[in-house]
Amino acid sequence: MGASYGDENPIAAFATLPGKSALTLIRCSGRGAIELAAGIFSKPEKLLNAAGNTVVHGWIAASGEKIDETLVSVFRAPKSYTGEDGLDISCHGGAAAGWGVMHALREAGFRDALPGEFTFRAFMNGKLDLTRSESVMELVSARTGEGRRHAVKRLSGTLQTEINAIKKTLATVLSGAEMFLDYSEDEIGADPEEAEGRLPGKGPAEEALVRLKNLASSWRRERIYQEGIPAAIAGRPNAGKSSLFNLLLKEERSIVTEIPGTTRDWIEAWISIEGVPIRLLDTAGLRDSGDPVEKIGVERSRRLLEEAELVLYLIDGAEGLTAGDRVFLEDFEKAGGNERTLPSRQILILWNKADIAPMPESFSPAAGRPISVSAKTGEGIPELTGAIAGALANRATAAFDNPQSAALGSVRQKNLVDAAAAALEEALFLAGRGEPLDLIAPLLREAVNALGEITGEISTADILEEMFSRFCVGK
Amino acid sequence: MGASYGDENPIAAFATLPGKSALTLIRCSGRGAIELAAGIFSKPEKLLNAAGNTVVHGWIAASGEKIDETLVSVFRAPKSYTGEDGLDISCHGGAAAGWGVMHALREAGFRDALPGEFTFRAFMNGKLDLTRSESVMELVSARTGEGRRHAVKRLSGTLQTEINAIKKTLATVLSGAEMFLDYSEDEIGADPEEAEGRLPGKGPAEEALVRLKNLASSWRRERIYQEGIPAAIAGRPNAGKSSLFNLLLKEERSIVTEIPGTTRDWIEAWISIEGVPIRLLDTAGLRDSGDPVEKIGVERSRRLLEEAELVLYLIDGAEGLTAGDRVFLEDFEKAGGNERTLPSRQILILWNKADIAPMPESFSPAAGRPISVSAKTGEGIPELTGAIAGALANRATAAFDNPQSAALGSVRQKNLVDAAAAALEEALFLAGRGEPLDLIAPLLREAVNALGEITGEISTADILEEMFSRFCVGK
Repeated sequence: MGASYGDENPIAAFATLPGKSALTLIRCSGRGAIELAAGIFSKPEKLLNAAGNTVVHGWIAASGEKIDETLVSVFRAPKSYTGEDGLDISCHGGAAAGWGVMHALREAGFRDALPGEFTFRAFMNGKLDLTRSESVMELVSARTGEGRRHAVKRLSGTLQTEINAIKKTLATVLSGAEMFLDYSEDEIGADPEEAEGRLPGKGPAEEALVRLKNLASSWRRERIYQEGIPAAIAGRPNAGKSSLFNLLLKEERSIVTEIPGTTRDWIEAWISIEGVPIRLLDTAGLRDSGDPVEKIGVERSRRLLEEAELVLYLIDGAEGLTAGDRVFLEDFEKAGGNERTLPSRQILILWNKADIAPMPESFSPAAGRPISVSAKTGEGIPELTGAIAGALANRATAAFDNPQSAALGSVRQKNLVDAAAAALEEALFLAGRGEPLDLIAPLLREAVNALGEITGEISTADILEEMFSRFCVGK
Repeated sequence: MGASYGDENPIAAFATLPGKSALTLIRCSGRGAIELAAGIFSKPEKLLNAAGNTVVHGWIAASGEKIDETLVSVFRAPKSYTGEDGLDISCHGGAAAGWGVMHALREAGFRDALPGEFTFRAFMNGKLDLTRSESVMELVSARTGEGRRHAVKRLSGTLQTEINAIKKTLATVLSGAEMFLDYSEDEIGADPEEAEGRLPGKGPAEEALVRLKNLASSWRRERIYQEGIPAAIAGRPNAGKSSLFNLLLKEERSIVTEIPGTTRDWIEAWISIEGVPIRLLDTAGLRDSGDPVEKIGVERSRRLLEEAELVLYLIDGAEGLTAGDRVFLEDFEKAGGNERTLPSRQILILWNKADIAPMPESFSPAAGRPISVSAKTGEGIPELTGAIAGALANRATAAFDNPQSAALGSVRQKNLVDAAAAALEEALFLAGRGEPLDLIAPLLREAVNALGEITGEISTADILEEMFSRFCVGK
């Protein structure tokens, strides 16, 4: 329809899901947005004369027909999310009311907002840098309170501040180097050899490298809060896999309960263990026939197990350790993790049905003494979640995270930090070897530019579009 | 938890679905709500000093931890939805942010709102009568634009006005009758016979009865907008039932697309034909083996067909009218509708696959010439939807609805209007027979009371609780 991120046309979009709820929020922004909305409002003068940050009550009405009774929050540029004139229209819930208002807005001249377009405009108008823009979407997708906490940190600017601080240091080093180069050229007869081994500000540059590497390593942990850790429950038929799956779901279900039905509930579900989002895969939701060795042969089950970074293996306490269990555990040991999960692929062995068949005192197979649980009575579940938290502690838990320190929030940021660190590392290496500054300066420039791209100080339309189009509409 | 509809304690609830969307709205109301919220707000003074109907930007924060960046709309009693002090907190979307704020609100002293509690308070504070309160929930549940239009009419007070007008008429008649009775008693020796056949205002009372009966009959039509008309696609295996189901879904899908996955999409789905919500049942989603006669034997399929008020019967054009089709159509004819649908149960016969097997010119079975369609190419679909609209016209379509006239919005209202009409009818009958006024007056009183109950002028705590508890939370 010719809509593009570059224009300032008035846009509108649902900012909340238009389902069966009390209210629906529609967000509008752009040049002339308030005037256009006034054209379909029962009290146009009140809207036109409304001060910024005030709420006006009235009906959205078109062609003399009342569509919905609304509360309209009016925002005046530049004091708004986007930095433009805007309105948040609070309609009645239910799709019919929301869509009725949306249709009226379209008729009035608003176009549908592109994904992420509100935040794009906020960025273009200097309201948010790119790290904070990204954190907005991260926040929307956060699956646990801990995930929210990490996103909020970036939203409030910790990453932006850190990146800017590192960039400033490097820019100072760079300008020192460039000044020296300029000076050397101007000074006729200046010996180019003089520039050797003389990177001014080498100390601060080395410190900046350490900070970049800390940031880069933060991503391994942050990624987990966004993607979760895939964990699978495995075991022989009737070992109680589904019961355990359901019990964990009931007790540890992530606060981010997906909209019912949108996840394939019985194959995977999110739980939260000490704030770490865990994507629990229920291999028992698949075909549950044949012995476990055969079962692993089933394509889908096998894939789930391969994907898992953590496997909860259930021994059927009523039967004890069977040959089938042994084969599975040996095979698992041999197979190791896949490329992605290695070396962190882990297994926890559980003795299930402890309520009717307690684990013998002496039982302790090669892999270590299992955790005794009963998926039926819930006994041993606190110990199990404790063990899961322990198994994941070295990669994710908050205990290992300094809440004050900046951390990365996206692959994009990670790649740019890596690029900056690589360039800086090479610059320092050359400097250490006493190479001339005119070889070193371009590398420093590269590092500075990569950091500028992280915050969006340096950006191209293509990069921005690519980035914001991954947002949800209305954001 | 001791929470009850009667108190004025500060309450909070999600007013939008806390899913993956740009924003989430949390609604708060009650005595001291603004002060409590200020305690967890980054700029407490701004919130405390905010005028009504203004928007304050800031962070929700608890124990020094930032939870989410929000826009808070402040409302001051009595200028609010509930008539109390209140706040609408616009958080970031995603369940983690919303729940983070909800937890903070609970910590601050808000309790979770009961279903419909905001609207309950609005009613108690005289903001809405009961007919308008009910229309709020009706609006949230509306499945089509036409359904919304009907709810909005009630929300803006047409029903309330009509009920009050009728009630006023009857109250005048009643007070005339009572005055006469009082007078007769005071006047010693007044002849009780004098009161016979002398109902003052009999004409207006008769007119009121007509209006009540009009209202009562409106419910048959209004009910359809709320419950929809169940329609089933039937036909022999491979007649193209699923293709037609999917095509209708794609082209006529109700604007009220349910949250994906919450309806059993492949068995039933809502479509909208000229504003009438139709619940389309796909018997093809069930077992599709055996010939149609056998198929009807399958319990579930049979139930769906029985439930349907409209059956779209597909003849497989490639095979022509088969013995199986004939048996189905004859059985259908014989069976008639069930008690609920009689006499309005209808069938439309379709000749499918017209793209590869055009319907012969001469083809015209007993039930009349079928509509020629192709579920594959979409040919004939406008004719089909036209025929559906025609079949339903006498019960539902807007053409038969005077947009100015009041209409009922709930079974509760219908029962009370019926009760009022019955009492009034008896009163008029007795008056016609010349019965004494002291027999007639109590019946008039009964009618007036029933009407008072509709608007909530007369109400009991039990009735109100029962009614509002059927609302959604946050409303």
